[in-house]
Amino acid sequence: MATKHAASGADKIASHAADKWREGRFTSGEDSLAVEEPLEIRLAGRRFTLTMRTPGNDEELAAGFLLAEGFIASAAELGEIRRVRDAKGLEEPNAIDVVLNVRAEGLRERLKRNFTISSSCGVCGKTSIDAITRRIPPIASTAKIPASTILRLSNRLRESQQVFAATGGLHACGLFDLDGSLLATREDIGRHNAVDKIAGWALVNKMIPLANALMMVSGRLSFEIVQKAAAAGVPFLAAVSAPSSLAVELADEAGITLIGFLRDQSFNVYSHRDRIVA
Amino acid sequence: MATKHAASGADKIASHAADKWREGRFTSGEDSLAVEEPLEIRLAGRRFTLTMRTPGNDEELAAGFLLAEGFIASAAELGEIRRVRDAKGLEEPNAIDVVLNVRAEGLRERLKRNFTISSSCGVCGKTSIDAITRRIPPIASTAKIPASTILRLSNRLRESQQVFAATGGLHACGLFDLDGSLLATREDIGRHNAVDKIAGWALVNKMIPLANALMMVSGRLSFEIVQKAAAAGVPFLAAVSAPSSLAVELADEAGITLIGFLRDQSFNVYSHRDRIVA
Repeated sequence: MATKHAASGADKIASHAADKWREGRFTSGEDSLAVEEPLEIRLAGRRFTLTMRTPGNDEELAAGFLLAEGFIASAAELGEIRRVRDAKGLEEPNAIDVVLNVRAEGLRERLKRNFTISSSCGVCGKTSIDAITRRIPPIASTAKIPASTILRLSNRLRESQQVFAATGGLHACGLFDLDGSLLATREDIGRHNAVDKIAGWALVNKMIPLANALMMVSGRLSFEIVQKAAAAGVPFLAAVSAPSSLAVELADEAGITLIGFLRDQSFNVYSHRDRIVA
Repeated sequence: MATKHAASGADKIASHAADKWREGRFTSGEDSLAVEEPLEIRLAGRRFTLTMRTPGNDEELAAGFLLAEGFIASAAELGEIRRVRDAKGLEEPNAIDVVLNVRAEGLRERLKRNFTISSSCGVCGKTSIDAITRRIPPIASTAKIPASTILRLSNRLRESQQVFAATGGLHACGLFDLDGSLLATREDIGRHNAVDKIAGWALVNKMIPLANALMMVSGRLSFEIVQKAAAAGVPFLAAVSAPSSLAVELADEAGITLIGFLRDQSFNVYSHRDRIVA
């Protein structure tokens, strides 16, 4: 059963033979699948990490990942991102090379801070939170958003999920302004990738820190997602579904208003509720 | 807003203050959250990896992770797993130490094979699949399962999800025999952790390879999940929701019958349908 990639949809959707069990028997057919491919991120030509992702917006993914991990803090530090080419000079679809514009000494210092968690004794959630908040100052944004605006976001994010509609296989991250207008949305098989792509988009467009914006993800909220939002400086983080205990604790410490179970008529707030106007 | 861990539920559920927006106003209350905490896995005392997980069954998580990554292939090779103790001799809740029973030479050879993907030029999905199938021979199980049995699994997995019912925040992995009886189920904030715990449970109980079993996960199926199922030798892998393109391609190569969108009345089969009896 070979997988055929669709000509349209920017390689995000593949068609695959599927035998469908309906009403007591199999019928043969085709199913649209979300494409998953590895992306190799290099730093100045050296392999740095490999992540499985939905192809597209790879530059944003690399930029957002490096922001979240504390390697860069601004578009200026991002330097140059280029596609890797093979021996024949053709672009590799799944490799990207970033040449940072950060002095080696500064980078070493950042890496050292970053890996504090790795050298601490007695690892626990608190240690993990401390490692983040030592690196990222708590968000002090005085931005406000009306509850009525928040209630509209869930539908808007869902309407923007083009590939999900076709495949049922993707997570989404959307960025909204405080009037509830959608600024950007990204879909990916990995929720963390969708968030990296949005943060990377904002970084490339010189919008970091995102002091007047709300980030929303489909599905659930883990520690990792809150960490990425904190690195992007966004004061509001919302999700369709449940946050974890550590996500709430980190949001509290990082100065983020954390919103969970966001539906059309209701939501829960777990931290910094004062930014929401009733 | 401090998070209180529940006395019961084996530290899997925490209670946290939540302001709930319902019918146009906030009411203060409490919400049950799925606990997320880091787990440090050491190899013979040296830090090996750190993963965010739901506490509980940490030994299984470590065993399943090492199986999936190709470090061990049997319970005998697992050697000894012990909790790490602090300076006062107290057990660290979030650290575990594994002393493998594998000769250093054999381990080096496995690691080398494992990192083939890292040294290959022109990374792509096919490269990723080759790296797995070079290490793990395709599953040749001749096991069969009736379609009617498959249709009953979705409900059974959901009924077993105790913490999800309380928090809405957990993924599940269940292991079934070919009559559809539930052998074991694990819940975790990370789907990959839930799968590692099930594979680790099977390893510790000397059931690897799982030639006559079906593994089922809540949510979606990625490349990583199929890789873990292949390492456990399980011929059937099912999910409530959609598989990715690379998940299907790997399942095809690895000899796994891949079932997606498994509901009460219907499911799709993407590879090796011959094991399903109509």
